[in-house]
Amino acid sequence: MSSNFSELKAECYELNMEIPRRSLAIYTFGNVSIIDRDAGVFAIKPSGISYDDLKAEDIVIVDLESRTVEGPLNPSSDTRTHAVLYREFGLIGAVVHTHSTYAVGWAQALEPIVIYGTTHADHTVEDIPCTPPMPDDRIEGDYEEETGNQIVEHFRSLGLNPEEIEMVLVGSHGPFTWGKSGSRAVYNAVVLEELARMALITRQVNPDVSRLKEALRRKHYQRKHGPNAYYGQ
Amino acid sequence: MSSNFSELKAECYELNMEIPRRSLAIYTFGNVSIIDRDAGVFAIKPSGISYDDLKAEDIVIVDLESRTVEGPLNPSSDTRTHAVLYREFGLIGAVVHTHSTYAVGWAQALEPIVIYGTTHADHTVEDIPCTPPMPDDRIEGDYEEETGNQIVEHFRSLGLNPEEIEMVLVGSHGPFTWGKSGSRAVYNAVVLEELARMALITRQVNPDVSRLKEALRRKHYQRKHGPNAYYGQ
Amino acid sequence: MSSNFSELKAECYELNMEIPRRSLAIYTFGNVSIIDRDAGVFAIKPSGISYDDLKAEDIVIVDLESRTVEGPLNPSSDTRTHAVLYREFGLIGAVVHTHSTYAVGWAQALEPIVIYGTTHADHTVEDIPCTPPMPDDRIEGDYEEETGNQIVEHFRSLGLNPEEIEMVLVGSHGPFTWGKSGSRAVYNAVVLEELARMALITRQVNPDVSRLKEALRRKHYQRKHGPNAYYGQ
Amino acid sequence: MSSNFSELKAECYELNMEIPRRSLAIYTFGNVSIIDRDAGVFAIKPSGISYDDLKAEDIVIVDLESRTVEGPLNPSSDTRTHAVLYREFGLIGAVVHTHSTYAVGWAQALEPIVIYGTTHADHTVEDIPCTPPMPDDRIEGDYEEETGNQIVEHFRSLGLNPEEIEMVLVGSHGPFTWGKSGSRAVYNAVVLEELARMALITRQVNPDVSRLKEALRRKHYQRKHGPNAYYGQ
Repeated sequence: MSSNFSELKAECYELNMEIPRRSLAIYTFGNVSIIDRDAGVFAIKPSGISYDDLKAEDIVIVDLESRTVEGPLNPSSDTRTHAVLYREFGLIGAVVHTHSTYAVGWAQALEPIVIYGTTHADHTVEDIPCTPPMPDDRIEGDYEEETGNQIVEHFRSLGLNPEEIEMVLVGSHGPFTWGKSGSRAVYNAVVLEELARMALITRQVNPDVSRLKEALRRKHYQRKHGPNAYYGQ
Repeated sequence: MSSNFSELKAECYELNMEIPRRSLAIYTFGNVSIIDRDAGVFAIKPSGISYDDLKAEDIVIVDLESRTVEGPLNPSSDTRTHAVLYREFGLIGAVVHTHSTYAVGWAQALEPIVIYGTTHADHTVEDIPCTPPMPDDRIEGDYEEETGNQIVEHFRSLGLNPEEIEMVLVGSHGPFTWGKSGSRAVYNAVVLEELARMALITRQVNPDVSRLKEALRRKHYQRKHGPNAYYGQ
Repeated sequence: MSSNFSELKAECYELNMEIPRRSLAIYTFGNVSIIDRDAGVFAIKPSGISYDDLKAEDIVIVDLESRTVEGPLNPSSDTRTHAVLYREFGLIGAVVHTHSTYAVGWAQALEPIVIYGTTHADHTVEDIPCTPPMPDDRIEGDYEEETGNQIVEHFRSLGLNPEEIEMVLVGSHGPFTWGKSGSRAVYNAVVLEELARMALITRQVNPDVSRLKEALRRKHYQRKHGPNAYYGQ
Repeated sequence: MSSNFSELKAECYELNMEIPRRSLAIYTFGNVSIIDRDAGVFAIKPSGISYDDLKAEDIVIVDLESRTVEGPLNPSSDTRTHAVLYREFGLIGAVVHTHSTYAVGWAQALEPIVIYGTTHADHTVEDIPCTPPMPDDRIEGDYEEETGNQIVEHFRSLGLNPEEIEMVLVGSHGPFTWGKSGSRAVYNAVVLEELARMALITRQVNPDVSRLKEALRRKHYQRKHGPNAYYGQ
């Protein structure tokens, strides 16, 4: 069967398969999407299909209103959350949702992941935000769309820039990450899980530990992102 | 050697081998059975045989009174527990018993696994029940049959439906899961272990966390099971 | 090179290689020995050789006074501990010492592993004993011999039978296990690590949990070891 | 392309690849260097290159002032920290920096890893030191050089010998280890992570546990390092 989006589907398939390979989710949990901004569509995992059974041709192409453009399967039930993020965060190229164990633990605890060290600071110099519990009327409305809205509103209320903090915990639910590219968004999902694990261990060693000092946060930010950035090639 | 149940044995063997593959138990711990309701028999792992040594022809066929119908080996010492579940939960097709680490931890702690998030709510909107310690006279009676009775009675006393909650912790012992199919019952055993691990991490991050709010529990239930269910294909 | 003990060495080598394969120790940590009671010698891992480099011909044959009978390498520095156990526990056929993470955690905490559930009770119905810290004069004497003496004395002072409890924690150090056969001793080392992990998780879920009730301890003991034992083949 | 340092690069590459293989870091985290003291240069991982993509020819050769001697890529951003250690600790042959999870947890908690048992004592009889948070003016200066200076000053202020304690936690950051050879430095990184994990478990089992008694610390030191050392071959 011919497709106008076979490359996008193939890439989306490969990115989805990173999720079980990196132990970020089991069976059908989680989903990755990537956008073709010129075509105004994104590719996303179908709903309820196990990673063991997933094939590239199962990937669904939808538009930014979450309407299916190509593919016989239903897209992920989280599709409308991805669509909100693509509409509101105009520079991102991919979105990853997992149920990775430690990130879910913090999300269920309704706590942002406090920045305790430089591993965290190398990725963002803020705590990883955690959205508050969703009000009942929004849960009973368009729940998945409202999940996206919650992320966007929470970033705005805290004055956070989604190009600088590419990860969030949805309270009582779990992590979403994004990035300019699909590989960056997956990378962020792996890093987030590791930061969640390190932060819990830190507290277990020393329950009275304080967050990373301001000068170190500033330094690590500038080392990677400042005018004289000197990390990488 | 010819058998009237070679297909049932082969399937039961494959399901049992998922237990070590999914890291749900070591050596001889745990056992999976599947029922052929028309024939009135179920297939189950033999007692005390290590997964490393297990072969399809070792699987034992027993009737619903736990009498061996075919096979030279003794069936699992937990056979009578499985038999009770098949007799009392008339729609289930398979039963899985493991000693997965975190589920055993909660069972030994004599605590139900509290529902803290949507990963849990996607599978059941109640806490995972944990049976109370068995009274001494029942321990000294037909212990494995009483283990099954305890599960059934605990579900009845809490008004729980075994088609909606396909998992339980037997207090001081460990998890049992079931499902319409063998693969569903194994899936539930994997999910239960993950929920047990997430719930402990959640409490470690925030010991004062409350259980998932009612509106989210209702929403996730309806998303998968309600009249307008929209999860999956 | 010809050897009178090539079979014993080959078996000892295979048992030692189970230690890294089962993630019970890294690099050179840990050691397994097996005894040939008729010949009055036992085979043991050489000292300071990494599992990656170990070969069957490196295995050292020593007598019950720990004098090398065959092999150019030094035997494990724990050899005299093994020798004491073989002399004092006359029915055991193999000894395993590991530095498995959770068992070491309990040993360093100087606490016996409390029996909280049936996984534990299927192996022993007592807590896993932990020897007290060694008095200074014994540390400064024949330290490895005294480690063996401590195990033996601790078993005697508690009235424990080494055929019924095939595992111990040496306080501030780590686990030793044994058994009639080499495979049983390794099995016990794997089980001990799992019991250590489950017991800690149990306490983390419920710090006020009590030990397993007496009737369940008795039942599980009799199921495997009583006159009407019905577990296994 | 011909190189004067192809052997050094090849060895450095292999050592770096041990980092992901031993699960000590993900993606680009961490770096290993080895020195050629005669040539006055050391080989180190390039900055921001993922282990998945790393090739032997990417390894950068720098002098002890961290100036690139050979290679088109930027050396690790931690290069100046390594250089300080090579200059100040004159007998070490290799340096390893990882972001291993438990060691980072202790470093972020700003706590030295207390010596609780003999696994620790077999490697060093002191707590694993943890440098205090860096003063702001040093963070804003030559940060990576100051990280090295902090390690050296902390060792001097505690009177520690870098040939006897081959590992340190940099507070709020993570572990550095070293050794005479590259394989020893990597070994130390693996051991440090295991000691960090064991020490946390020890405290979780018994929050009131004391550090290892003096006589055992002395004994294990002498067993490996004393005039009558009898560990190994």
